[in-house]
Amino acid sequence: MHTPSSAADHYELYYWPGIPGRGEFVRLVCEDAGVPYLDVARRPVEDGGGEQAVVRALESLPGLPAFAPPILRVGELVIAQTANICRFLGERHDLAPGTDGGRAEAMQLQLTVTDLVAEVHDTHHPIAVSQYYEDQKPAAKLRAAAFRDERLPKFLGYFERVLQRSGGPWLLGDACCHADLSVLQALLGLAYAFPRAFARASAATPKLLGLRDRVAARPRIAAYLASPRRQAFNEYGIFRHYPELDPA
Amino acid sequence: MHTPSSAADHYELYYWPGIPGRGEFVRLVCEDAGVPYLDVARRPVEDGGGEQAVVRALESLPGLPAFAPPILRVGELVIAQTANICRFLGERHDLAPGTDGGRAEAMQLQLTVTDLVAEVHDTHHPIAVSQYYEDQKPAAKLRAAAFRDERLPKFLGYFERVLQRSGGPWLLGDACCHADLSVLQALLGLAYAFPRAFARASAATPKLLGLRDRVAARPRIAAYLASPRRQAFNEYGIFRHYPELDPA
Repeated sequence: MHTPSSAADHYELYYWPGIPGRGEFVRLVCEDAGVPYLDVARRPVEDGGGEQAVVRALESLPGLPAFAPPILRVGELVIAQTANICRFLGERHDLAPGTDGGRAEAMQLQLTVTDLVAEVHDTHHPIAVSQYYEDQKPAAKLRAAAFRDERLPKFLGYFERVLQRSGGPWLLGDACCHADLSVLQALLGLAYAFPRAFARASAATPKLLGLRDRVAARPRIAAYLASPRRQAFNEYGIFRHYPELDPA
Repeated sequence: MHTPSSAADHYELYYWPGIPGRGEFVRLVCEDAGVPYLDVARRPVEDGGGEQAVVRALESLPGLPAFAPPILRVGELVIAQTANICRFLGERHDLAPGTDGGRAEAMQLQLTVTDLVAEVHDTHHPIAVSQYYEDQKPAAKLRAAAFRDERLPKFLGYFERVLQRSGGPWLLGDACCHADLSVLQALLGLAYAFPRAFARASAATPKLLGLRDRVAARPRIAAYLASPRRQAFNEYGIFRHYPELDPA
């Protein structure tokens, strides 16, 4: 899926190499849609990849400047913001409803995943993104406790309620959309970062766990997850496993 | 602007009364567009208003459940997420570009305002939304310092760069979009919450201050800001002025 086959579908993704991070939400849309994309920074440095590719994209891509990666380039168009890119790709590749109202519903769900992801990030960086986790550990323990006890059950319960209301099998009913794909990534990340708290909270959300399994079983997603393109979670990304933040 | 004039434009906004909060970004789009909207929770309790109106909306509006307010109801459609509502209204009322790419650019800017607003919120609530500010003050001082010194200049500098790139007078060039309106609210909120830090950081972003003044001078926005519909910032909302978080 790395080699673009036509100019119309020539997508270039710019995201930090070495972590799945927010770039992964974009990758999942491309993978499920079966559209080729060039994951620029994951190429060897000598081929224009590496972190420098992202830094260069932030500084000097034409078009609208981006505040942060991921950045998607499609010809002359350069767009950023994870949820925004997921929606844009979803609407182009049959992973979004066809009406303005339906598209707003899908985006509402996508942005609720965005909020959840931001809160996960802040469990290990509650004070400053510029400081190491080790330097903000006391606050991280407090924030992580509030996340585990209050926010995680609330987010999971919300998506469970969405599935109850729609009747499934997907968040919005009959058709899978970009937000379903992002929910998979969020749930896998939560299970990695907070295995104990996630097991506790998700025991009350069987429909959501069913959705997770359903998305993971989609043929192109299953193939992707088993491929070398899929990167493992680690302690440099958003979903980090620090045992002290997930006590028994 | 509170009384809907036709079924097609019958917008109902549900947001916590007593604070401008995230609801204000939605109000600004309606006000600039000149479309009527019913600000449900600001009606008297005996007419169905008050906080209970928001609680009821979260629990029992038909359609897709919302994780949090603001919520917009348009007939059968119920959508949430501030940026999503702003985009939806902007596209309906000539406050968004006409192409998919242009709309994604406007949404990218809108979502960058969303990120900024979330970071402002976390300066006074770095640990838990469920706890009082007074109970998380030590962490708030640390987080606010990082926000003032690193994040605030970065966000303001970003929007300055967008204006340099577009050439103005609006973020995307010739036409005002929903994101321009939201930038006004963000800048007014920052000046309220962090008068000292905002004065320091914005000294380097003259184009952005020009945009602020230009949006505030739009006839319907100017009329709105001078009207009793406009609510003052206070220490119950997102933009709070705590002098200890904005030292000299």
